[in-house]
Amino acid sequence: MDQIEPIARMISALSHLPGIGQKSAQRLAYHIASMPLEEVRDLATNLWQGRKAVRYCSVCGNYSVEDECQICRTSMRHNGQICVVRDPRDVMAMERMHDYQGLYHVLHGTLSPMDGIGPGDIHIQELMDRLQAGDTQEVILATSPDIEGEATANYLARIIKPLGIRVTRIAHGLPVGLDLEYADEVTLSRAMSGRREM
Amino acid sequence: MDQIEPIARMISALSHLPGIGQKSAQRLAYHIASMPLEEVRDLATNLWQGRKAVRYCSVCGNYSVEDECQICRTSMRHNGQICVVRDPRDVMAMERMHDYQGLYHVLHGTLSPMDGIGPGDIHIQELMDRLQAGDTQEVILATSPDIEGEATANYLARIIKPLGIRVTRIAHGLPVGLDLEYADEVTLSRAMSGRREM
Repeated sequence: MDQIEPIARMISALSHLPGIGQKSAQRLAYHIASMPLEEVRDLATNLWQGRKAVRYCSVCGNYSVEDECQICRTSMRHNGQICVVRDPRDVMAMERMHDYQGLYHVLHGTLSPMDGIGPGDIHIQELMDRLQAGDTQEVILATSPDIEGEATANYLARIIKPLGIRVTRIAHGLPVGLDLEYADEVTLSRAMSGRREM
Repeated sequence: MDQIEPIARMISALSHLPGIGQKSAQRLAYHIASMPLEEVRDLATNLWQGRKAVRYCSVCGNYSVEDECQICRTSMRHNGQICVVRDPRDVMAMERMHDYQGLYHVLHGTLSPMDGIGPGDIHIQELMDRLQAGDTQEVILATSPDIEGEATANYLARIIKPLGIRVTRIAHGLPVGLDLEYADEVTLSRAMSGRREM
């Protein structure tokens, strides 16, 4: 016997989510089918209402409930620093560190000529507009150390430096706790070339 | 900065699902927040409408859209065999095998004195009522080979045999493809005691 239709629909909807394959989607659908009605209603409502309530901050592009996000609105952050990241998840990761007190700019993507994603396809113009306003002393490029992330960082450095703004790149090296022998060559090479005096 | 409230609600709702921890829930919520509105509406609708459309088959207890499930309704199955399983997911697993042509009975749980789950708390009376009807020649006990599954199988065998119905237990042994040296002792002991002539 095939799956009954309502469960087949649940499986199909769930299996489109990232990291949820056919098997996990099946397990989740079977679980949801046995949950009390009101719990499933709450789940569905939270997803739908949550999605409707979220928009992008008009300044930095991070997730926000208001026109400007909490980070851009508060006077508690240093507005001389802008940390450039690929997507809102990266803002969350940086904020978990509880260390950085500047602002953010979310690109919503990285340059990828292979996929036809050029400077006009991600939020680079919005960043340049913010920099023209003149408050920024430093732009920290925090895109990932992969090909697209590096290409994006290099491109941004080239167009921002002429504005007389300091441009930095977050350090890449051995993650804390990783045994040297398990590090891949590229990471190790970055760790070597980024070595500092002790 | 903390998570904005709509995303915090998504994370909380998702993290109650089985196999989805705090980190996966965060990743999923951030993804859903960036999905097109209509896709999130479809996801929420499929979960909620799906849950509302699912009920338990009045005969075997499997998930069903109608009062009786597809398997109980069809005339294509042998109605002399009833395979007893713990929950609807086990029916799905058995059906994937495309081998068994009999009926099912879903207990919706297993006996567990430790958790205070006795015979009256799972669908045993419903099974006995079906057996009294007289069509059944064999009951196949397919609960898991763990303590609760074994206790449930033993209990059912004891009360069903007096009805003059054949009671069998699915075989437990080495899973196909598993190296002998990785098998745990209990599985190995089951495999030994269940050995057959070649």
